[in-house]
Amino acid sequence: MSFGELWAELLPVGRDESTGGYRRYSWTEPDAACRDWFTRTAASLGLQTECDGNGNLWAWWGKPGDGAGPAIVTGSHLDSVPDGGAFDGPLGIVSAFAAIGQLRQDGFHPARPLGVAAFTEEEGSRFGVACLGSRLLAGAVDPAVGRDLRDQDGVSLADAMRAAGRNPALLGPDEDLLAAIGAYVELHIEQGSMLDGLGAPVGVADGIWPHGRWRLDFTGRADHAGTTRLPDRRDPMLPFAATALAARQAATDCGALATFGKVIAEPGAANAISSSVHAWLDARAPEASVLQAVVEAVSEAAAEAAAVHGVGFELRQESFTPLVSFDPVLRDRIGEVLTAAGRPPPVLPTGAGHDAGILAARIPTAMLFVRNPTGVSHSPAEHAEPADCEAGVAALAAVLADLAGR
Amino acid sequence: MSFGELWAELLPVGRDESTGGYRRYSWTEPDAACRDWFTRTAASLGLQTECDGNGNLWAWWGKPGDGAGPAIVTGSHLDSVPDGGAFDGPLGIVSAFAAIGQLRQDGFHPARPLGVAAFTEEEGSRFGVACLGSRLLAGAVDPAVGRDLRDQDGVSLADAMRAAGRNPALLGPDEDLLAAIGAYVELHIEQGSMLDGLGAPVGVADGIWPHGRWRLDFTGRADHAGTTRLPDRRDPMLPFAATALAARQAATDCGALATFGKVIAEPGAANAISSSVHAWLDARAPEASVLQAVVEAVSEAAAEAAAVHGVGFELRQESFTPLVSFDPVLRDRIGEVLTAAGRPPPVLPTGAGHDAGILAARIPTAMLFVRNPTGVSHSPAEHAEPADCEAGVAALAAVLADLAGR
Repeated sequence: MSFGELWAELLPVGRDESTGGYRRYSWTEPDAACRDWFTRTAASLGLQTECDGNGNLWAWWGKPGDGAGPAIVTGSHLDSVPDGGAFDGPLGIVSAFAAIGQLRQDGFHPARPLGVAAFTEEEGSRFGVACLGSRLLAGAVDPAVGRDLRDQDGVSLADAMRAAGRNPALLGPDEDLLAAIGAYVELHIEQGSMLDGLGAPVGVADGIWPHGRWRLDFTGRADHAGTTRLPDRRDPMLPFAATALAARQAATDCGALATFGKVIAEPGAANAISSSVHAWLDARAPEASVLQAVVEAVSEAAAEAAAVHGVGFELRQESFTPLVSFDPVLRDRIGEVLTAAGRPPPVLPTGAGHDAGILAARIPTAMLFVRNPTGVSHSPAEHAEPADCEAGVAALAAVLADLAGR
Repeated sequence: MSFGELWAELLPVGRDESTGGYRRYSWTEPDAACRDWFTRTAASLGLQTECDGNGNLWAWWGKPGDGAGPAIVTGSHLDSVPDGGAFDGPLGIVSAFAAIGQLRQDGFHPARPLGVAAFTEEEGSRFGVACLGSRLLAGAVDPAVGRDLRDQDGVSLADAMRAAGRNPALLGPDEDLLAAIGAYVELHIEQGSMLDGLGAPVGVADGIWPHGRWRLDFTGRADHAGTTRLPDRRDPMLPFAATALAARQAATDCGALATFGKVIAEPGAANAISSSVHAWLDARAPEASVLQAVVEAVSEAAAEAAAVHGVGFELRQESFTPLVSFDPVLRDRIGEVLTAAGRPPPVLPTGAGHDAGILAARIPTAMLFVRNPTGVSHSPAEHAEPADCEAGVAALAAVLADLAGR
């Protein structure tokens, strides 16, 4: 099947017709439909699909650990942020299947196992920890902590997995699987517009900025909005507001990024002062020390504003990924392959986290980016041109042929 | 039945065991259970319950409009804000039944019809318009607008009423019912601590500050939190934050109240810039001109901050109640009755809206307040001492005996 056919088949799954955005959250019905699509597509290409103990899917051409040498794996993720776009994640998996289809058509025979991976809960949209599937696989999250992660309705990951027919007792690192993989190459839509500026359809990643997510809890006192005198109030909305502005200022001052995209005011009545406000800070910077300075500035501003309003304040790190530099040898080899194919790829940094960034700590890892003309991502407006997607498939096929061909 | 017995029977209905707060939203299961309790209690006192076209309940001792003179009605509401306290609303209804029970026990025979009313959706917690039941009754909300009000899940009031077995075509003013009522007296827990400062268990209301609710919509652009450069962002969270702080400043400057207790960021992902932020301003002031000045200051600050961030901004009034001065003749008569009973009541203003404030535009209306030692309301911590509740019942019984006895 062509890229276009595979793409069209996956496109309607989990799409909200009112916004055009996707709501593919792990261990939900749309997620199960994505997994079905993955398994069916793999089978149509003659690949065998396995689900590891962490819920990640692996479609194999050849058997890993069978003595034919370390496997080459490509892939990405199928889950989305709330109202995310169609490309972030699925483009890597659809491109992987399309590239393998092309290799089969070309009569290619891999000298070592070739795999397509779909990592679970990459966005952290349901259980709050980004790249959860790859983190569990790589031993970067304690499986007991993972099992007890809760979604917004209080459902634990363990219960969600059980409801989907999986055994949460199997969560945790898989050293045999990691040892059997020689390299991981993830193709992804660029979440920015550097390639567009450079006029290139495909680039390779340099590294990933250190980044993380912090939860801020402001605890005030619920009270009547119409009768409580201003000096008697302990309104947590006010220190939150001051903190959101301080975060933007700190990011500006430090050359970093800081965002509050999720905030929950409880109980959420228009005529009651909030009892508490919970907010999530996403922060990223070129260096860990800069990131630390931003988070410290935000935390200090929050603590100060909370004290002014008689409100309690706590900050907790929910996830952190240090600076990732992708394997330079693998990156150079990919550069040579694509240059030989007539498309020398620009080398780009990124502020976005990826499963490739988690796996980079354990195995040689690289990323290919496909041009995003507007740079918009995590939005229904996210887009890549079909010709650029085809260029991505061709580039990935060339890279896989090179890496798995010898 | 005594006040304590009636109170204990209603207490568990719609209580969230984790917070201790109430979630009695109109036309839900807890609301139906409250209505059942009302009807059963009325029947045990020999009162006949009717539901008017707007969903308000009326329990009658005698038949209104039967020629015995204009009816005297007391009552309040049974619905709650999210995680509200036990007293706001139910205290008035339980006290009404307890007072009527006491009058029956004393051998009192009303010279005119005596009614207990439970108004629906007083808090506006489900459909966004406070005092919706009394507004519809009094013709202060267009029934077509009322039918199409939506809850957070997009369910219309019409559909919610149909699901509860009511006919939404009957929504609208009821002139016959209004004409049959000579006076409405609402007993309510004080939502402030003025009575506590004065050492009085019961007071009478002077009037209600002008107040209203405004919806603010900030429309930005969803984007990736990890890759979108600060100058490229159109993040609606930032003008919202600036507006929340500006609202507090405007309220301080004007001697008014302003609160943001409800905010919704969409799509609500920690790693995405929001596409939009919706926030609700609750504002109240001693005079309409002051209130207008506060809302204008907030609106200007919001528009300015939105422009700075390239974000769209709209403000819409969702409800507005002008200054209410309760009927002075009725208030003085109540004062004389309570003074004669040995408890001269202090006269208090309030910033809280009530059905009595809506009805005051159509019929002579008064309010009794019962002491709230902490002043806390719209919170699980809301409290009144049992002895003060009993004092409220005694005061209400004396007032009803006086008004309905001749």
